[in-house]
Amino acid sequence: MIREIYLDNSSTTKPYDEVVQYIYEVSKDFYGNPSSMHTKGIEAENLVKHARVQLADALKVDAKEICFTSGGTESNNLAIIGFLKANPRAGKHIITSEIEHPSISEVYKQLACVGYIVDYIPVDSQGIIKLDALRAALESETALISFIHTNNETGSIQPIEEINKIRKAICPAAVLHIDAVQAFGKTRIYPASCNVDLLSISSHKIHGPKGMGALYIRKGIKIKPILLGGGQEKSLRSGTENVPGICGFGLATEKTFADINESYTQVSALKEHFLLNIKKCFEDAMINSPEQASPYIINVSFPNLKSEVLLHHLEQTNIFVSTGSACSSLKNKHSHVLKAMGVSSKYIDGAIRFSLSSSNTISDMDETINALKEIIPVISIKRGGKL
Amino acid sequence: MIREIYLDNSSTTKPYDEVVQYIYEVSKDFYGNPSSMHTKGIEAENLVKHARVQLADALKVDAKEICFTSGGTESNNLAIIGFLKANPRAGKHIITSEIEHPSISEVYKQLACVGYIVDYIPVDSQGIIKLDALRAALESETALISFIHTNNETGSIQPIEEINKIRKAICPAAVLHIDAVQAFGKTRIYPASCNVDLLSISSHKIHGPKGMGALYIRKGIKIKPILLGGGQEKSLRSGTENVPGICGFGLATEKTFADINESYTQVSALKEHFLLNIKKCFEDAMINSPEQASPYIINVSFPNLKSEVLLHHLEQTNIFVSTGSACSSLKNKHSHVLKAMGVSSKYIDGAIRFSLSSSNTISDMDETINALKEIIPVISIKRGGKL
Repeated sequence: MIREIYLDNSSTTKPYDEVVQYIYEVSKDFYGNPSSMHTKGIEAENLVKHARVQLADALKVDAKEICFTSGGTESNNLAIIGFLKANPRAGKHIITSEIEHPSISEVYKQLACVGYIVDYIPVDSQGIIKLDALRAALESETALISFIHTNNETGSIQPIEEINKIRKAICPAAVLHIDAVQAFGKTRIYPASCNVDLLSISSHKIHGPKGMGALYIRKGIKIKPILLGGGQEKSLRSGTENVPGICGFGLATEKTFADINESYTQVSALKEHFLLNIKKCFEDAMINSPEQASPYIINVSFPNLKSEVLLHHLEQTNIFVSTGSACSSLKNKHSHVLKAMGVSSKYIDGAIRFSLSSSNTISDMDETINALKEIIPVISIKRGGKL
Repeated sequence: MIREIYLDNSSTTKPYDEVVQYIYEVSKDFYGNPSSMHTKGIEAENLVKHARVQLADALKVDAKEICFTSGGTESNNLAIIGFLKANPRAGKHIITSEIEHPSISEVYKQLACVGYIVDYIPVDSQGIIKLDALRAALESETALISFIHTNNETGSIQPIEEINKIRKAICPAAVLHIDAVQAFGKTRIYPASCNVDLLSISSHKIHGPKGMGALYIRKGIKIKPILLGGGQEKSLRSGTENVPGICGFGLATEKTFADINESYTQVSALKEHFLLNIKKCFEDAMINSPEQASPYIINVSFPNLKSEVLLHHLEQTNIFVSTGSACSSLKNKHSHVLKAMGVSSKYIDGAIRFSLSSSNTISDMDETINALKEIIPVISIKRGGKL
C-alpha cells in the first residue's frame, strides 16, 4: 500500500483508532436509549453524562452548559436561530463577518429576508475583521454578534478580546457567538473566561466521529430549539441521543486536549518548515494565511494554474489537499474568504489549502514540496496562454 | 453473565453485529469528506450513494428522493417545517392526529402559535383515527396532513388507503406526510405506490446506528431546509455527511428487508403466544394494542399497580420493557395515546409496552410471563389501598 499524505484535516480528520474502537464497544454493549427508565437506559445516560463532562472540562465550563448536536452546522444554526427565537425583543440588528462558514452566512442571509438588519464586517488583508468597522456597526440595540474564531480556509484568528472590549463599550447586552469548529482542540479557547456566550464545536475535525457536534450555551443565555420532539438535551435538541457518537466525541476531546500543546508545537514546526520551502522553491507563490494564523491551516496560491488541476495531480501521488473549503468545493465558486481579503482572481484560482494534524510529519511536508516541484512546472500556463 | 430479555425495541434496538463492524471499517478506512474533490472524498461519496440506493430499494423509490437526516425527529421536523416553509401559499390549515409522536405534535403546537390552524383528529378505542372526523376536518385548502403509521406506544396502524381516498375526494392538493419510524422494516410500506408524499424513517429502530434517519421526499414536492450551510443533501440538509452512520443505516436496511416477512411471521407468533398467556394468567389485564396492530408492539395494562414499579421489578430479572414511549417516560406524564383511546387512568397507570424484535424468542416471552406471575401479586395494591 502506498503511503497516504493527508493534508485535508480541515475538511475532516481520520478518527483516532481508540475512538473507533470505543464507538464499536459502546454500540455493541450499551445500546439502550438514555430516555429508557431501566438499567440499559441508565447505563447509556451515564455514558452521555461522562462525555458531557469530557467536553466541559476541555472548555473549562459547566457540563450543564454543553448541548450535543449532530455537528458543527447544527451547532451554528442552533446558536443563531435558537437565540433569536428565544429573544425576540433583543433587537433586529445582527452582526457577522464577510468570512464566515456557510452554516453561519446562509443563516444570516435568510434572517435578512425576514426583517433582521445584518452588518457584515469586512476583513483586512490578513483576514482579520476591521475593528473600526465593528465599532461603527455596533449599536446599542445589536442583538447578536457571530464570528468564526479560526477561519476554515486561511486559519486567520479573530481577536476575541478586542471584539469583547468593543462590545462591552458599545453594547454589552449583545450576545457573542463564536464558531470554534476549526479552533477547538487546536487553540485553547475558554468561552467562560473570555466572555463568549455561545460557542460551536464539531467532533470530526478533532479525530472524533462524524455526525456529532456541540454548542456551549452560557448559563443564563436563553435558546429555543430548532428540533422539537421528545425533549432530550433539556428540550434544546430533541431526538434520541447518538450515544456511541457522543462517547466517541468525548474520548476524541479528551485525547486531543491531552496533547494539545505538543500538537500545536509540532504542527507549528511543520508549517514553518513547509512555508520556508514553499518560499524557496516557488518564488511567485503567495501565502494567503497570515503569519499569526493557526498553524493547522496553510493557504497558498500558485499563480498561473488552476487549483483543481493541482489538487488532482497531487492526489495521483497520494497527497490529499483542498481548494478552499470542502463545503464550497462542490459548488466550484470563488472563495469568498480570499475575495474578502482582497486576493486577486489570478491568485484565488490557484489557491490550495494544506490543512494539518498532529499525525503529519516533516517527511509528509517534504514529499509534498517535492511533488509540487514536479507538478507545477507541468501544469502552469505560460504567460499569454489561457487558463 | 445473566441472559438479557430486551423487550424495549421500540425505544431502540441492538445494532446488528455486521452493522457495528461495517461502521468500524468505514470509520477507519473511508474517513474522507464526501465534499472533498480528491479520491478520499469520492470514495466516501460513493459509500453514501450506495446506502441511498439501499434505502430507496427498500422503499421502492428513486434514490434521489431520499434525504439523509440525523434521525426520526429531524425527519419529522424537516417534513412539516420544511414543507410549510417552501409552500407558504399552500394554506394555513394543517391536520394531524391525537396520537402522534412528540416530534410531530410539538411542531404542530408551535405552528398553531404562528398562525396555522390545526385540527387534531381523534382516534377510536382501537387507536385508529376517526375517518368521519378527518372527512369533516379536511378543507379544500388544507395544506398538510401528517399521521403516524404505526403508533409507538400501541402499534395501532392507520389506514393509509382510506385516508388517501378521503384526501383525494376533498383536497387532493393537501400533502400527506407519514411518520413511519415504527413501521419501517416491520410492515412493508411503499410511499410511491400508496401516494404518500413525505415519509420519515429512523435507523436505530431497525438495528442500525443511532443518530441517523431519512426523509423520503416525493419528486415534485418542494421542501426548504431547517439546517443551512454547505449545501449537502442537495441543499436540503447541510452538514458534513455522517458517512459511517449512513453506511450503517444502509446495511441495516438491507439486512432488515431481506428477512422482513420471516421476522413478521416470527414476531406475530410471539405476540400471539404472549397474549394468550397474559389473558390466561392475568384475568384483569387489559390489552391496549388493538388486534390488527403491529405485532412488534404489545401494550398491556395491569390494573392496581404502577407501571414504573413493575418495570423496575422486571429489570431486576433482566427483562427490559417500557412504560409507554421512552421519550415521554422521562417526563412521567400520562400517556396521551392511551388517553386518546379512552383508556381510564387506572389502566393508564399500569400500562407496560413490550416491544419486540426478531431476536426475541418464545422462551423470552415465557420467562417474561413467569416473571410477571411472580412480581404482580407482590406489587399490586389491594382494593381500597393507595396507589
